[in-house]
Amino acid sequence: MKKSVEVCLTPELIHQHELGGKIAVVVDIFRATSCIVAGLHYGVNSVTPVGSVEACLSLGKQGFVTAGERGGQKIEEFDIGNSPFDYQNPDFIGRDVAITTTNGTMAIERSRNADEIVIGSFLNLSPTAGYLKSQNKSVVIHCAGWKGTPNIEDTLFAGAMIDRLGLDLSGDSSRMSLDLFKHHEEDLLSIAKVSGHARRLAGFGITKDIEYCMNVDEFKDVVVGMVDGRLVKI
Amino acid sequence: MKKSVEVCLTPELIHQHELGGKIAVVVDIFRATSCIVAGLHYGVNSVTPVGSVEACLSLGKQGFVTAGERGGQKIEEFDIGNSPFDYQNPDFIGRDVAITTTNGTMAIERSRNADEIVIGSFLNLSPTAGYLKSQNKSVVIHCAGWKGTPNIEDTLFAGAMIDRLGLDLSGDSSRMSLDLFKHHEEDLLSIAKVSGHARRLAGFGITKDIEYCMNVDEFKDVVVGMVDGRLVKI
Repeated sequence: MKKSVEVCLTPELIHQHELGGKIAVVVDIFRATSCIVAGLHYGVNSVTPVGSVEACLSLGKQGFVTAGERGGQKIEEFDIGNSPFDYQNPDFIGRDVAITTTNGTMAIERSRNADEIVIGSFLNLSPTAGYLKSQNKSVVIHCAGWKGTPNIEDTLFAGAMIDRLGLDLSGDSSRMSLDLFKHHEEDLLSIAKVSGHARRLAGFGITKDIEYCMNVDEFKDVVVGMVDGRLVKI
Repeated sequence: MKKSVEVCLTPELIHQHELGGKIAVVVDIFRATSCIVAGLHYGVNSVTPVGSVEACLSLGKQGFVTAGERGGQKIEEFDIGNSPFDYQNPDFIGRDVAITTTNGTMAIERSRNADEIVIGSFLNLSPTAGYLKSQNKSVVIHCAGWKGTPNIEDTLFAGAMIDRLGLDLSGDSSRMSLDLFKHHEEDLLSIAKVSGHARRLAGFGITKDIEYCMNVDEFKDVVVGMVDGRLVKI
């Protein structure tokens, strides 16, 4: 069968996608998957996504760095929040991180029926596209969205990835994502700043993260995937 | 509160939208809502959406014209299928129609918590926009999609309507719909033909319906809304 690419705009629609035999690319641009990719680039050993604050704290007691957010803000007892800058700390080199976030970790969990889970971000768009092209499997881009609704930044990423992959499009959402990207290709940051989540983060004074997460190909050689329940460089 | 417009890309996400106090604009371009608008333009008295073939046949016994489809094709026992051309029949002037379709009638049913339900189509885009602008209520554009997934043609309509309304945008899906429309504004038909549903219909040899349903403002003064469970000119 010819390889194709499809897009799921929110985890609430993932049951409409057959994941078996495919690679799921999970994306939560603001900010979970950007953090995971940055963390692994800057030297953390692995990132384990978990569903609850309690599960994260429990791993913390076993030596994991605890990371994440609820409602966009750091959890008090955690070591770090959900900013990619939090991961640029030499103390974390070689450490294992446990992360829980509002949207991203659920999208990862709901991708479990895929043959393989890969983490997407603008920061490593091209190396990830290169990896996907090298594999003989169709791709489902699974957008984390915002509390079940589609969002601009993840859809924009889906379009950018589709543009790089050049595969057959499956489903209308893939074409709509590609067109959104094409419409804004010359200035991704401006449209990303319009997204509801970017505006919420700006409301907390978090604007530098938005700009950072929209840097295309900041990292040239990091590809991140799930191996035995942990996200690692692959 | 200032009036706003939001977009629900598929009935599977409608629970994320507060409908109370708002007008729901239900849209199923290919072809249920285009049929309903065409039918009322050409003189049918009312169109009653029902959920099942049996309910439709039951109304047929009471004198209703039975109309609709399953999987895009006419139901054998029905008087007519789901083509807007089926309604251009002088025998139906003054008659009541019962309709059941794969996607459109479910979207109408799931809009019941709105203050008011209005039917959207490209055929009467401007008169419908004029009506919505005259009302002091926010608007939710409810796309019927295809079996729970977002589709191109309904999202394109949402964008076209948003462009006409000039209201504040609520939620990322509204901005993405507007951008899809803006990206294709000069040639709506070409992108509509790419949609999965258009290609399915073309597979049944139904191409003239696609072109007809994309005619913007074919009717200059028809606005259709739900009154006492029936869709009528309002």
